[in-house]
Amino acid sequence: MSRLRLEYANCLADRVGTHGISASTLEAASRQMSDLTQQLNSSKGTGMECWRLLPFDPLRTAHLEGINSLTKKHRDSTDNLVVLGIGGSALGNIALHNALCPLTYNLMPRPERDGPRIFVLDNVDPQVITRTFAEIKRTDPSFERTLVNVISKSGETAETAALFMIARGILSEAMGDKHSDHIVAITDPKQGTMRSICDEAGYETLPVPEGVGGRFSVLSPVGLFSSAMCGIDIKALLDGAAEMDERCCEPDIRQNPAAMLAFLLIELTRQGKINHVLMPYCNALYSLADWYRQLWAESLGKRVDLQGNEVFAGATPIKALGTTDQHSQIQLYREGPNDKVIGFVEVETWDDDVCIPAGLGVENLSYLEGVNLSDLLKAEKKATEYALVESQRPNFTITLPRLDAHCVGQFIQMWEIATAYAGLMLNINPYDQPAVETGKVATFGLMGRAGYEGWKDKVEKTLDTSSHMIE
Amino acid sequence: MSRLRLEYANCLADRVGTHGISASTLEAASRQMSDLTQQLNSSKGTGMECWRLLPFDPLRTAHLEGINSLTKKHRDSTDNLVVLGIGGSALGNIALHNALCPLTYNLMPRPERDGPRIFVLDNVDPQVITRTFAEIKRTDPSFERTLVNVISKSGETAETAALFMIARGILSEAMGDKHSDHIVAITDPKQGTMRSICDEAGYETLPVPEGVGGRFSVLSPVGLFSSAMCGIDIKALLDGAAEMDERCCEPDIRQNPAAMLAFLLIELTRQGKINHVLMPYCNALYSLADWYRQLWAESLGKRVDLQGNEVFAGATPIKALGTTDQHSQIQLYREGPNDKVIGFVEVETWDDDVCIPAGLGVENLSYLEGVNLSDLLKAEKKATEYALVESQRPNFTITLPRLDAHCVGQFIQMWEIATAYAGLMLNINPYDQPAVETGKVATFGLMGRAGYEGWKDKVEKTLDTSSHMIE
Repeated sequence: MSRLRLEYANCLADRVGTHGISASTLEAASRQMSDLTQQLNSSKGTGMECWRLLPFDPLRTAHLEGINSLTKKHRDSTDNLVVLGIGGSALGNIALHNALCPLTYNLMPRPERDGPRIFVLDNVDPQVITRTFAEIKRTDPSFERTLVNVISKSGETAETAALFMIARGILSEAMGDKHSDHIVAITDPKQGTMRSICDEAGYETLPVPEGVGGRFSVLSPVGLFSSAMCGIDIKALLDGAAEMDERCCEPDIRQNPAAMLAFLLIELTRQGKINHVLMPYCNALYSLADWYRQLWAESLGKRVDLQGNEVFAGATPIKALGTTDQHSQIQLYREGPNDKVIGFVEVETWDDDVCIPAGLGVENLSYLEGVNLSDLLKAEKKATEYALVESQRPNFTITLPRLDAHCVGQFIQMWEIATAYAGLMLNINPYDQPAVETGKVATFGLMGRAGYEGWKDKVEKTLDTSSHMIE
Repeated sequence: MSRLRLEYANCLADRVGTHGISASTLEAASRQMSDLTQQLNSSKGTGMECWRLLPFDPLRTAHLEGINSLTKKHRDSTDNLVVLGIGGSALGNIALHNALCPLTYNLMPRPERDGPRIFVLDNVDPQVITRTFAEIKRTDPSFERTLVNVISKSGETAETAALFMIARGILSEAMGDKHSDHIVAITDPKQGTMRSICDEAGYETLPVPEGVGGRFSVLSPVGLFSSAMCGIDIKALLDGAAEMDERCCEPDIRQNPAAMLAFLLIELTRQGKINHVLMPYCNALYSLADWYRQLWAESLGKRVDLQGNEVFAGATPIKALGTTDQHSQIQLYREGPNDKVIGFVEVETWDDDVCIPAGLGVENLSYLEGVNLSDLLKAEKKATEYALVESQRPNFTITLPRLDAHCVGQFIQMWEIATAYAGLMLNINPYDQPAVETGKVATFGLMGRAGYEGWKDKVEKTLDTSSHMIE
């Protein structure tokens, strides 16, 4: 059993001076964090904290059975899987796919490729939609080997609804009523617009479980169905998450990765480190940083009323990629404003590796000969860590022993639990997103949706820009 | 001729209150910016400002001729183009490819795909390298229809050197000395390690021109050769850049997009908006935000000595994607710390579009029926702009009349010139990157390169973490 590691020495004052956390602050926090752990242990599985139960029975078995039954039915007969969703209904799917399927997945032929090609459409970009369906049609003109997986709890999210209407239109034009065999919806099991659509048309469905918000849903059917279709070991994902969950019930912060992570980041935020960079040294894990961006930003970026004072809480999550961004962002991270914590993510043992061959015969480069690429990658990361410490920039490292589903499951559960801790520490509800509403209703108004007539004028009056434009 | 537009009303105080720029500040800046324009007009083409000459003769013609001759030779006989580079030797290539080639480019067959498949390798990730070469070998076992384009001015960058040694090893194992016909290097025309390698092995080369730094090199052979191989209209790119350059010689800030952009961003930085988000509403333009990230971060993130006081200048560039990130980041952008400027990028006329079909028969969604996807995208952007203004968050919009090479060329030249202005405003040299050095030498030390022996101990002593790890 390989366990995720969290190294945090570079966040402490004896490493990075006043930009780090003092020993006494860490000491004092131990008690508080232990109290929060008890609080989370007892609220676990209640209200909006049902996501913590996803890796455990009975949800685990129920979801696996539902997913396996649909996967068995569709996997061999599907060449193109089109996932429609946005935000929490897409970022996890993309992250799991990129982390655990080969980079060249969509280019590979079957059976080397362990499932259909996958296209996750999470934007209403006209070119993306046109090109994607043109490519699918090229390989499957009748769309008979194409499956659409629409993910929407309510069915009312404008982007997903629009994409669904387009995809459904294409399928029904191609095959009439038979199109209903080519749609699997993941939606509310009881109510809502998408529920009614599915019931009426007879689409197969899997549930978005109750008490599981979008950005905490990756380990539910939302993220697991498309993963299973592409051959990812979803049981191992849940196993990893369950093991991490148990570690995060531990009252001692020095044994509890999520509690420590939350403490480091929120305490450093208080000390002015308001930008939180997540920087995997692994291309496959880069999309997990996008998943993290939503989790951290939408959960904690909140206006709070502190005794009559308006406070804008939260920190800005930023994604970066090592070594690539050493040649793009590290100049700034070392010599720009000291307002960041850098979180490295590292893979310890690589299954694929390449040895840099000798034979070029150039003296200056001979130090690279016979070296494994993974060792160069690790040296680069260590050197960057050192350079940041030298500039008193706090940083930490999450190490995945391997790049596999078991470790990725741990990573996900750890960050979700860390977010719950952070919510408690900031006195914020991490499960709502009130500020997203205005944009939604303003869109409805601009699109002429009944009931939102007033918004169009309001928006256009506010944004009349003619006099401040260079053209 | 379609010209880029810059709308900036939402950065002004009468839109976003004290979080914006006052009319008097803008008024007062006009004179200063006009002086800087004169300064840049006269330094243009000297020292490290030679990049401004790239769109003009004689460089233009010289580069186009060199590129066309190699493209003519290799394009039809190449099925896989492997680009090796990092930072400024990759981000521009990726950005141009994603902006101007179809999203599904690598999946399409020829002749629909107007050139070889492209794989830009800008990281020493062992899995990426293994998988990419395995995929190439699958389709081209002898590597006879594969071309490697290595981009490195010096040849000493560890990552690019390692990748080059691996790629060269694979090619020479497959075809011996004949491998030299399958390598095109873009490097210093006169000196350096890569120059010597090319001279000795007889590799074809194109120049990294003198006085053009990596992050300002995309419109040189660095970015243009791989683009031309993939069928991008590189003349139109240069035309667009040339036209923008002329607009940016205009002393009146109200007519000069780069001067206005630099003024807005640096002035707002002074007012505490230290995070600069670039958020295209267009998937194809998302990688240009990565290119911008390097330009802005590495050029301006500098430690400066202000009369004995150490100041950490610069702002943190952040990339986001509309509408996708409305469901991930907008909660934070509206209710989190008011420390950002949001730069939208919008496409005005879409060549590909999709009409959302009727037929679903759901009342709640009927407002979407018959709507073009591009109009939904625009409404979403406008609604988000409105929501940000309502929360007093400054933002601006860059509009590309079309998604084509001419407009992308304008966009690139505008941001590069804005960076030059910002350097002058901050009293910073935007053309160096001193803080990257420590990581480089520490890597050499850890890798055992001769002459860097002391660094290994130094790094390992500093980073001994055993006591601050959760495992």
